[in-house]
Amino acid sequence: MSLITTETRGVFVIAVTPFREDMSIDVESIDRVTDFYYEKGADGLTVLGMMGEAPKLTQSEALAVARQSIRRSNGKPVVVGVSAPGLAAIGELTKAVMDEGAAGVMVAPPSTLKTDEQILGYYQTVVATIGADVPVVLQDFPLVTHVQISTGTLGAIVEALPSIVMLKHEDWPGLQKISDLRKAEAAGRRRISILCGNGGVFLPEEMKRGADGAMTGFAFPEMMADIVRLSNAGEHERAMDLFEAYLPLVRYEQQPSIGLAVRKHVLAKRGAIASATQRRPGTGLSPAAIAEVEDMIARQARKLEQVK
Amino acid sequence: MSLITTETRGVFVIAVTPFREDMSIDVESIDRVTDFYYEKGADGLTVLGMMGEAPKLTQSEALAVARQSIRRSNGKPVVVGVSAPGLAAIGELTKAVMDEGAAGVMVAPPSTLKTDEQILGYYQTVVATIGADVPVVLQDFPLVTHVQISTGTLGAIVEALPSIVMLKHEDWPGLQKISDLRKAEAAGRRRISILCGNGGVFLPEEMKRGADGAMTGFAFPEMMADIVRLSNAGEHERAMDLFEAYLPLVRYEQQPSIGLAVRKHVLAKRGAIASATQRRPGTGLSPAAIAEVEDMIARQARKLEQVK
Amino acid sequence: MSLITTETRGVFVIAVTPFREDMSIDVESIDRVTDFYYEKGADGLTVLGMMGEAPKLTQSEALAVARQSIRRSNGKPVVVGVSAPGLAAIGELTKAVMDEGAAGVMVAPPSTLKTDEQILGYYQTVVATIGADVPVVLQDFPLVTHVQISTGTLGAIVEALPSIVMLKHEDWPGLQKISDLRKAEAAGRRRISILCGNGGVFLPEEMKRGADGAMTGFAFPEMMADIVRLSNAGEHERAMDLFEAYLPLVRYEQQPSIGLAVRKHVLAKRGAIASATQRRPGTGLSPAAIAEVEDMIARQARKLEQVK
Amino acid sequence: MSLITTETRGVFVIAVTPFREDMSIDVESIDRVTDFYYEKGADGLTVLGMMGEAPKLTQSEALAVARQSIRRSNGKPVVVGVSAPGLAAIGELTKAVMDEGAAGVMVAPPSTLKTDEQILGYYQTVVATIGADVPVVLQDFPLVTHVQISTGTLGAIVEALPSIVMLKHEDWPGLQKISDLRKAEAAGRRRISILCGNGGVFLPEEMKRGADGAMTGFAFPEMMADIVRLSNAGEHERAMDLFEAYLPLVRYEQQPSIGLAVRKHVLAKRGAIASATQRRPGTGLSPAAIAEVEDMIARQARKLEQVK
Repeated sequence: MSLITTETRGVFVIAVTPFREDMSIDVESIDRVTDFYYEKGADGLTVLGMMGEAPKLTQSEALAVARQSIRRSNGKPVVVGVSAPGLAAIGELTKAVMDEGAAGVMVAPPSTLKTDEQILGYYQTVVATIGADVPVVLQDFPLVTHVQISTGTLGAIVEALPSIVMLKHEDWPGLQKISDLRKAEAAGRRRISILCGNGGVFLPEEMKRGADGAMTGFAFPEMMADIVRLSNAGEHERAMDLFEAYLPLVRYEQQPSIGLAVRKHVLAKRGAIASATQRRPGTGLSPAAIAEVEDMIARQARKLEQVK
Repeated sequence: MSLITTETRGVFVIAVTPFREDMSIDVESIDRVTDFYYEKGADGLTVLGMMGEAPKLTQSEALAVARQSIRRSNGKPVVVGVSAPGLAAIGELTKAVMDEGAAGVMVAPPSTLKTDEQILGYYQTVVATIGADVPVVLQDFPLVTHVQISTGTLGAIVEALPSIVMLKHEDWPGLQKISDLRKAEAAGRRRISILCGNGGVFLPEEMKRGADGAMTGFAFPEMMADIVRLSNAGEHERAMDLFEAYLPLVRYEQQPSIGLAVRKHVLAKRGAIASATQRRPGTGLSPAAIAEVEDMIARQARKLEQVK
Repeated sequence: MSLITTETRGVFVIAVTPFREDMSIDVESIDRVTDFYYEKGADGLTVLGMMGEAPKLTQSEALAVARQSIRRSNGKPVVVGVSAPGLAAIGELTKAVMDEGAAGVMVAPPSTLKTDEQILGYYQTVVATIGADVPVVLQDFPLVTHVQISTGTLGAIVEALPSIVMLKHEDWPGLQKISDLRKAEAAGRRRISILCGNGGVFLPEEMKRGADGAMTGFAFPEMMADIVRLSNAGEHERAMDLFEAYLPLVRYEQQPSIGLAVRKHVLAKRGAIASATQRRPGTGLSPAAIAEVEDMIARQARKLEQVK
Repeated sequence: MSLITTETRGVFVIAVTPFREDMSIDVESIDRVTDFYYEKGADGLTVLGMMGEAPKLTQSEALAVARQSIRRSNGKPVVVGVSAPGLAAIGELTKAVMDEGAAGVMVAPPSTLKTDEQILGYYQTVVATIGADVPVVLQDFPLVTHVQISTGTLGAIVEALPSIVMLKHEDWPGLQKISDLRKAEAAGRRRISILCGNGGVFLPEEMKRGADGAMTGFAFPEMMADIVRLSNAGEHERAMDLFEAYLPLVRYEQQPSIGLAVRKHVLAKRGAIASATQRRPGTGLSPAAIAEVEDMIARQARKLEQVK
């Protein structure tokens, strides 16, 4: 069992939760998509995130999905999203998944938090509830949570709570936040790992600003793996060439609500899951949208030929 | 086992969930507060509402609280709040509590809903998930849910979904909504039961506008019972006299966030629960606030002497 | 010309802007309602607040209303609301009204502000724009602005900006905020004046917690004047007796949106303005609402007889 | 003087408002950037939009900017954004700019609107205020306005108000909305013009779905002109090739808040305005951001060489 740390780097794919057409959990596809993610270059997974349809699962289903993903990952690190309206549920699920071998848990702030003080207080309560020995990923995603965490407040949280080892960075705009966090570390604050979300739409710039990798679920995870590898090697032009081949689809998949339908459609098309089915409430793809996605994938393949 | 219907009238008290000081569920106090509510004039209860700290319970705890309340109610109707981010959890909890003998379930709209069409679509999906035989209370509480349901959209929902038998009315301002709904019924639309929330702060006016009773948790439930009884008897002046004696505390308890601390403090003081403890996140009362509440209760007792 | 200071106490009535039935500004009624407010015990006025329909005026109309109110106040202090989306408009209106003899300006935070740092930064920019010699009232009204200012952030603003001399307090719940601000002053921070809003619905408690008076527009300003006077004299029971006579209407007038229609209806009925007309968008009163208001005023008169 | 109609097609550039470094309006740069937009292929302009910093201008400045832009446009159509919190200001500015020769006005819904009924009611009031002879652009931008207008509600508005001749489309996701609107027109509803915003980030797809052009302010307006021209010619592959060359910068400029700084930086670099200065509140570019923009422009130039 490996835990995430402040030094963790690489690509953690935000895993989808596969459903059969009758909306039951498709256990076989969990195995298949887990294998797929690692084959395409993932260093670890994050399950039960927002794009993992976590709020649509019952608590026992959530635990079952986490357990299956952890087992299939066979020692590779799996972070589990445990965000919930109440701390009792967070505490219970955290204990269960850490016992199963999770590498850490991810917690987004509830939308009721308004002031800096409330945000810091919330994470203090979370850590008091789950125990200071559980590594925590703080998910900073204001577009969805409606909670704006300033760089100063992030710093206060990092200083107060050593078990917060990683930031899932998806503020928008957010490049300056990475620079500012790294600058504070250069001036003496302890390091944290920064993995970036938002579908990867700013990944090359994020790597140059000092990110450690990606934590997002774009349906071509090899994109994230390649960009992170090339960026770490200092080959930023090569990284941009590759990135631009994927960018039209990255952009299209980043649309709120419909984005998950695109992602599952592509994963099903690539054979990684058996069905693109989402649980309700969920949004499907119109024939026009499917045609647009197919066109983009075909163009993307031609572009990748050119840049390789 | 009695079910709520479109003809249900009276007072359904929004029940608190009692915790011991160690934050575990206080089963004995569930029995005690259940008895207390009925002694003070309740016709039924609503458990696992927002003020029942439902989001702070695990799913198994929620079911245990509902079961205990239903059993102790001994045939009196108990509505169970089942609002959750995902339909799987709503479906699972609904099935479990209806099997235990609940009188119906209450569902608030998730804050992601924006348009009239989305709101109607959501309730259609809820009913498709839980079955059209389960009576549903629609909780209309925009101050907390941030979902504004127009009278027209409420009408469309009522027309489309016969199993929605009751409105928990707590729009603010909301008196006109009651008048408009009753007017539409007079013109031919099927009747629904309207029980009013918001801590009872407009209960006399709501009764005059056509409400069927109260569904709220003010710590002196005898207020709701008396106002509903007097209003039904047409004794509006007497109702106002009584109401005004309680109004300072009603107003104070209606404060967001701190209101639940006031309510539990009063219930503990009255012997209905063993401890005013809330689960986290929760807000406590300062000594100054406690002094204000104590003063108000003493004044209230003197005023009630005068009007009785 | 008198300016507001950190020592200002008493009742500043939030003035309505009277319109004729054709929606033009009713200058004569400005004079009449101004006289009315002072006759009923106001120590000063605040014009062009939210309840003064400020956003519905053109810039030249806003200046005309402010000018007329200041002149008619004949030396009594008039605060002018200058909140606007842009700093150029704030600067321009501030200069104009201070030249006319305003006692200070009131600024609410724009809803785009999220973090503590942004809120402090905003007020720094405001003061830089209008000049540090203009006394400023900070309007703290999260229910409407959606900006939650913590007590700590208020403290930081007070320490950074000496020209912020007054807080228009209408956080909800907000009693603890008053206590905390006064406690920080007891420990050495400079004093600010705290006048309370929210229609006066917590005025007796606010005075006991340390407020300096009221800044709100309840249509019976004599209520605020009496409560403030009795509270300052330590006669809290008498204050509560009076307050309770008004409380049903205070509660009713505090309803969002419809509240202004109630206020203007009562002021017109009392002869303080010629017409209850609001500019669009605005909400009118149904016959049922008018009947409720009339009943409450009659009951209120009888109750006041009893307590006087 | 030409007015926009339901048949209007092409590119209307959302114009920046140029300021000198002392934050005064730079009239000379208004002329220069106006010429620049037309040289790069604009068919018309839209001034005083959100990205034109309209809320930061005083009313007299707003009118001066509109007048200057209209005159310099020399007969080409100029739409003027007149959104304001109150209808009096909307009415006053509309009258003034139409007298100056504007081609129509653009109105976004205020964030206080919640239900479909309120949204329709608002536009009815707007049209009643400004007169049914003034062509109106409805700006549908939920990310900023927080008002979600369903396709059904858009249809109801279009049917009720013939003077609403154009939709500024920037819902996100929004492609299906275009398809649905065009489908309703095919079934008999009157046509409206649809020009797309959002920085152009979905322009090729929007044109295929049936849009009539672009109304957005990307700092390389030749992109919009070329995509619209090629799309109308059915050359979708060519359009995508060109689009992809610009997409990295489009994406970067589309970031909220910082986007305008990028846009003004590029326009200043291209000589279209003298200074990238924004009025406060505004966000500047860090050296790292400037370097990223410069790199992207250089790559973009190389890519454009390849595809031309």
